[in-house]
Amino acid sequence: MPFRKIINDPVYGFITINDVLIYQIIAHPYYQRLRRINQMALASLVYPGAVHTRMHHSLGAYHLMHMALQSLKTKGVKITAKEEQAAKIAILLHDVGHGPFSHALEGVLITGAHHEEISIAIFKELNTIFKGKLTLALAIFKNEYPKRFLHQLISGQLDVDRMDYLTRDSFFTGVIEGAIGYDRIINMLVVHNDALMVEEKGIYSIEKFLVARRLMYWQVYLHKTVLCAEKVLKQIIHRAKFIKAPTTSRINDFLTKHRSEITVANFCSIDDVDVMVAIKEWSSSNDKVLRLLCDSILNRNLFKTTYQLKPIAEKTYKEQLKKISTTLKISLADAKWLILKGESTSSTYNFTNEHIYILFKNNKVKDISDIENALINENITGKIKKHYFCYPRL
Amino acid sequence: MPFRKIINDPVYGFITINDVLIYQIIAHPYYQRLRRINQMALASLVYPGAVHTRMHHSLGAYHLMHMALQSLKTKGVKITAKEEQAAKIAILLHDVGHGPFSHALEGVLITGAHHEEISIAIFKELNTIFKGKLTLALAIFKNEYPKRFLHQLISGQLDVDRMDYLTRDSFFTGVIEGAIGYDRIINMLVVHNDALMVEEKGIYSIEKFLVARRLMYWQVYLHKTVLCAEKVLKQIIHRAKFIKAPTTSRINDFLTKHRSEITVANFCSIDDVDVMVAIKEWSSSNDKVLRLLCDSILNRNLFKTTYQLKPIAEKTYKEQLKKISTTLKISLADAKWLILKGESTSSTYNFTNEHIYILFKNNKVKDISDIENALINENITGKIKKHYFCYPRL
Amino acid sequence: MPFRKIINDPVYGFITINDVLIYQIIAHPYYQRLRRINQMALASLVYPGAVHTRMHHSLGAYHLMHMALQSLKTKGVKITAKEEQAAKIAILLHDVGHGPFSHALEGVLITGAHHEEISIAIFKELNTIFKGKLTLALAIFKNEYPKRFLHQLISGQLDVDRMDYLTRDSFFTGVIEGAIGYDRIINMLVVHNDALMVEEKGIYSIEKFLVARRLMYWQVYLHKTVLCAEKVLKQIIHRAKFIKAPTTSRINDFLTKHRSEITVANFCSIDDVDVMVAIKEWSSSNDKVLRLLCDSILNRNLFKTTYQLKPIAEKTYKEQLKKISTTLKISLADAKWLILKGESTSSTYNFTNEHIYILFKNNKVKDISDIENALINENITGKIKKHYFCYPRL
Amino acid sequence: MPFRKIINDPVYGFITINDVLIYQIIAHPYYQRLRRINQMALASLVYPGAVHTRMHHSLGAYHLMHMALQSLKTKGVKITAKEEQAAKIAILLHDVGHGPFSHALEGVLITGAHHEEISIAIFKELNTIFKGKLTLALAIFKNEYPKRFLHQLISGQLDVDRMDYLTRDSFFTGVIEGAIGYDRIINMLVVHNDALMVEEKGIYSIEKFLVARRLMYWQVYLHKTVLCAEKVLKQIIHRAKFIKAPTTSRINDFLTKHRSEITVANFCSIDDVDVMVAIKEWSSSNDKVLRLLCDSILNRNLFKTTYQLKPIAEKTYKEQLKKISTTLKISLADAKWLILKGESTSSTYNFTNEHIYILFKNNKVKDISDIENALINENITGKIKKHYFCYPRL
Repeated sequence: MPFRKIINDPVYGFITINDVLIYQIIAHPYYQRLRRINQMALASLVYPGAVHTRMHHSLGAYHLMHMALQSLKTKGVKITAKEEQAAKIAILLHDVGHGPFSHALEGVLITGAHHEEISIAIFKELNTIFKGKLTLALAIFKNEYPKRFLHQLISGQLDVDRMDYLTRDSFFTGVIEGAIGYDRIINMLVVHNDALMVEEKGIYSIEKFLVARRLMYWQVYLHKTVLCAEKVLKQIIHRAKFIKAPTTSRINDFLTKHRSEITVANFCSIDDVDVMVAIKEWSSSNDKVLRLLCDSILNRNLFKTTYQLKPIAEKTYKEQLKKISTTLKISLADAKWLILKGESTSSTYNFTNEHIYILFKNNKVKDISDIENALINENITGKIKKHYFCYPRL
Repeated sequence: MPFRKIINDPVYGFITINDVLIYQIIAHPYYQRLRRINQMALASLVYPGAVHTRMHHSLGAYHLMHMALQSLKTKGVKITAKEEQAAKIAILLHDVGHGPFSHALEGVLITGAHHEEISIAIFKELNTIFKGKLTLALAIFKNEYPKRFLHQLISGQLDVDRMDYLTRDSFFTGVIEGAIGYDRIINMLVVHNDALMVEEKGIYSIEKFLVARRLMYWQVYLHKTVLCAEKVLKQIIHRAKFIKAPTTSRINDFLTKHRSEITVANFCSIDDVDVMVAIKEWSSSNDKVLRLLCDSILNRNLFKTTYQLKPIAEKTYKEQLKKISTTLKISLADAKWLILKGESTSSTYNFTNEHIYILFKNNKVKDISDIENALINENITGKIKKHYFCYPRL
Repeated sequence: MPFRKIINDPVYGFITINDVLIYQIIAHPYYQRLRRINQMALASLVYPGAVHTRMHHSLGAYHLMHMALQSLKTKGVKITAKEEQAAKIAILLHDVGHGPFSHALEGVLITGAHHEEISIAIFKELNTIFKGKLTLALAIFKNEYPKRFLHQLISGQLDVDRMDYLTRDSFFTGVIEGAIGYDRIINMLVVHNDALMVEEKGIYSIEKFLVARRLMYWQVYLHKTVLCAEKVLKQIIHRAKFIKAPTTSRINDFLTKHRSEITVANFCSIDDVDVMVAIKEWSSSNDKVLRLLCDSILNRNLFKTTYQLKPIAEKTYKEQLKKISTTLKISLADAKWLILKGESTSSTYNFTNEHIYILFKNNKVKDISDIENALINENITGKIKKHYFCYPRL
Repeated sequence: MPFRKIINDPVYGFITINDVLIYQIIAHPYYQRLRRINQMALASLVYPGAVHTRMHHSLGAYHLMHMALQSLKTKGVKITAKEEQAAKIAILLHDVGHGPFSHALEGVLITGAHHEEISIAIFKELNTIFKGKLTLALAIFKNEYPKRFLHQLISGQLDVDRMDYLTRDSFFTGVIEGAIGYDRIINMLVVHNDALMVEEKGIYSIEKFLVARRLMYWQVYLHKTVLCAEKVLKQIIHRAKFIKAPTTSRINDFLTKHRSEITVANFCSIDDVDVMVAIKEWSSSNDKVLRLLCDSILNRNLFKTTYQLKPIAEKTYKEQLKKISTTLKISLADAKWLILKGESTSSTYNFTNEHIYILFKNNKVKDISDIENALINENITGKIKKHYFCYPRL
């Protein structure tokens, strides 16, 4: 009987693994570690169901990749067995470089490092471990393979990464309006000149997908309470580094060492658990600022947050600063650590470097924003900025 | 034990009827007749699941009305028990004036009559039957009651009618992208100066609702095959009238009599069944044109349809006409009956006479298209026209 | 690009037809006619969503057949392309012999004829039309093909027919407890000595399937109100035949002719519409009995029904008879027509002629009722009888 | 505007909190801590979606309690506002005494302590904090309140605890066959002589509920891989205590102190995170046994598990023991630590001390196993035992 493992998934029903190499990659500790990294960082403080893991997401994206490749093959697109395996491996590992709390601590624990850069480092190490069997997958991942639609399925406007995370995050948060018609979109994908495009009759599904993404950004990912919690989380790490707060947690190395001293194995040894344990320790720190920040996350004692289109007035900021300093009896310099402000931005569709192409029956190609009666047009596709302002409820 | 009837609904789980008068109205033959009127006319020729009835839809809208009234009451809006009962009756009967195949034959079987006009006539007759107990419901239905938000819940930009039909039609067609967050929208409704508005944090849900509606229009309601089938259906009635085609069906009266001769009881005695039985008879009519039209619907032998933004070129039309005339050996005058062309239009949001108002926390009111970074703007909200052109596949 | 048609299905998402012959069979009027036959007869009088058609069900069963065949092939079961096509055709046509209101009028309109017998007659006629291309499908349907598991997938304890109707009926009624794990069951199917069996780890899913079926029988198919409505429907036909009630409906032939006079074409020309139109006519018949029976269905003026384990006492019956006769001023002989009584039976699992076999890892085979700790045992698997007793509410 | 907080829940849509006291209890750190306790311990090693928390479950149970109380009130059952609030508080706190990994480490971290005992201790402390406002809730929780149906809704055969966990666990695992008709069951609940019973027409839903529970036990809760992982987890703690393995984790106190030394505050300071961090440390312990056990969980390097009805043969055990000792070069005494064997049991319905009563229309009361044609009978309701045997794959 051929090799076959079936994994239950509440989103898609069953996910089938029928390739031994893929199964071995999944079984590797570097991959299993994604079980301990929450896909949505601290969103569960607002949406209690949002506790699914990065591993679950990447398995889901793998499943959609399988569907997409089968669909393209039935439309006559040539995809070899090796390419199929490689594309599946590439999507499985596309997020392997995420550290604790994913985006929320990206560039903070390892100063300045982007998760894709780390993904490539881990990818290479796994390629060594698996004796070069991941070479093609790595080429696709890095967009160095001629059939560029394979890379676009991993990272592009209509990649299976986005399709899975919108579907999955919508499912686990219960924000059903974020649901997209992933199966219809996948059915509408075509390849034209090695590039991924969408059949004409898929236009409305694509519009819906972009609007669902816009909704998920503002309603979930950039929800003011979620945003605030994640800013506080970042601030915790910054403060701990600043005051050199001691901790028994494994993240201690990341607070004290230079990024050049961190190996792939070091990186893969930490996850959400290690950050959370540090927060638990620091919630009784001698440093009042750190203590307050940690308590905010640990006991969901969340900061007050306002969101507005104009920048925060200097006066408002100063008043708040003074109030914090006075009430908590801390210096103004320390009080500054307890006010978080800045911009958050999101764009539904970015005209400069993102493109979704529609392939019409007459073989003409148009950008989704250039079709007649387009919903997606310049008015809505510029970046939207909102200014946030968070501080303790006193 | 208080009166309570529970109806299973695959969309909402359970629908509860806990008012004797409402139960009696539902039990009346004028209402029960909606069981035999398909909610989506001929859409099931493309979406086989779309066979739900007008009765089911109006029960669903009743359920959402119940939810909306409860939600408004918890927000402090004053709604008396009488008003609640009346609003529920009004929504139950909002579509009672629909005849066979709903919109598809509206104004055709009873020349020029709109379903709301007929609804009012039936409503009045029921009010007599129920000894005036429907007077308040009728006032709300006709927008003659001061608390105009009650009417807006029945007929307005955010009425429970639309919320139910989008939800239900999306459910039964399987076009899940048409699903809207009806419970979230209902939770976000507020009343300000007796008018229905939406809380600020409901903006994205409303945008999503408008985009879902746009999608349902083009993907389902105005799907070219559905549109064509419904145009053919209309043409069948026109042709039958024109050639005075005999039928044993009860619709015969409607083909031969003037609308002033039709009573409410006559109207309520016909439904989809009577039209379908006439189509079955006429599918072996001596009239080749009628026979072909009827066969097209009966055996899903659907006409070829094209949809385009520009009007159909006169030349294309004439060529097709000639081809039909020659191939079917019928006169050009008869051939004309087999070509259907015209415009179909839809607007996502109409600036001139439709409004969705957002109530901001500072008590300011803005139209959804006037908010900052609005998705809904003039570019997308003008009416979209498409030209259709349908003819037999020969 | 290969042939491919996609049908939206709210239950399974998409159903794909990728075989021209299969598409042509679906397009045939004998098949299209199933659009006008309700899958669940009159169940929609209780469950308003239950208006899906036999066509929809058979498309769904076709989809599950496709899934089952793919799954078996990945387990190494040899199935040729011809066999796959034939099995799919056989399941598509498995119910083609159903007439108006399916089971409810089975053997009534065409006295004594079972739908499978008629299915075979239609099947044969289609085989002639399609020039013998359905021969293998017919052999599988009639269980005359050596790989008997193919027949078992169409008609057996774990056939895709049952899997689809339980899933679909549960979906459209909203009785979610009737949902079965069809995808898990299909994944657990194996073939052993040409017979269909279930892997050991599928035991609980099978138990669940049998219990869901038991629930659907008593809660839906044999729901006392549904049962009563269907008995009344039968009685309408019997009464109409008895009093030779005139009708313009096409079913008139079926009321007056011997079954030997009915051709396949005749049979395929009638559907629910023709019966319903007759009921509408007879609802103003001169015959009070027929009128009352018809009104009961037409206006959901349903008879009172009791269900009990013991037979109805003769005394109760006689009292009711007298009351009807007196109140309605009709003879006792006529009053008898308005009382419906009898037994309805259902069995969860029948020990004598039904078997579900479990294939254990050690290659041993056991009946589902013989495994240790079986839920399914003789206590629950005998036939359950209930006595029904229906009469007009006076 | 009245107090109202809405929480998104993918299972029920929205959960509404409209009581300030209840909101304050939810906000308390003792309750918020349940965010860091996985509802299903290590089931996510098999079902990756099963990462929902105890907090989410108890909010869900609270929601069902609300539904049940509303339904009972519409049936005329007298429930005061105080009783309603108290019953809701009691269900919110019913699991507050669960420690890290819930059942999996129950009685291990705090030797011999059952979670209900600890729940009561925490409940009392919260009652002090909230100045006696939880007194009635506590009485209901401890079954010391005369309206015992309130307690039965919290802890009984048909309590909202079970209804939520079956529904929720089925949802998050994707084992849809475990879904129950919670809304139908709740609608069927009645109170008779202060006891919770079920209306006659709810019988099939109850049977389905019991069978779904049986399925969830064997397919999920006692799935051999899940069971094995949880036995290994227990063994980790036992071994760590035995060898006095050092750890920086907060659970250290629990390994070294007597239970009488542990305060409520101590208990509430630990959660899954602290256990996981200890496992991460011990995965590089000098003790080979502890290291292997920890690696098994951390990297999903799971032990081989067999499940059988007969006890494990002594010979099989000894052979395995020897093999482990030889291969790993450890003493037989140490090797014993790596073999886990024992019994797991489950009963669908227990005749001796569990009862589900059906209230018939004639006011007769029967146990669900005493009704005619009962699915639930002695044959299936005795306890089922299976013997497990787990050891490292070498």
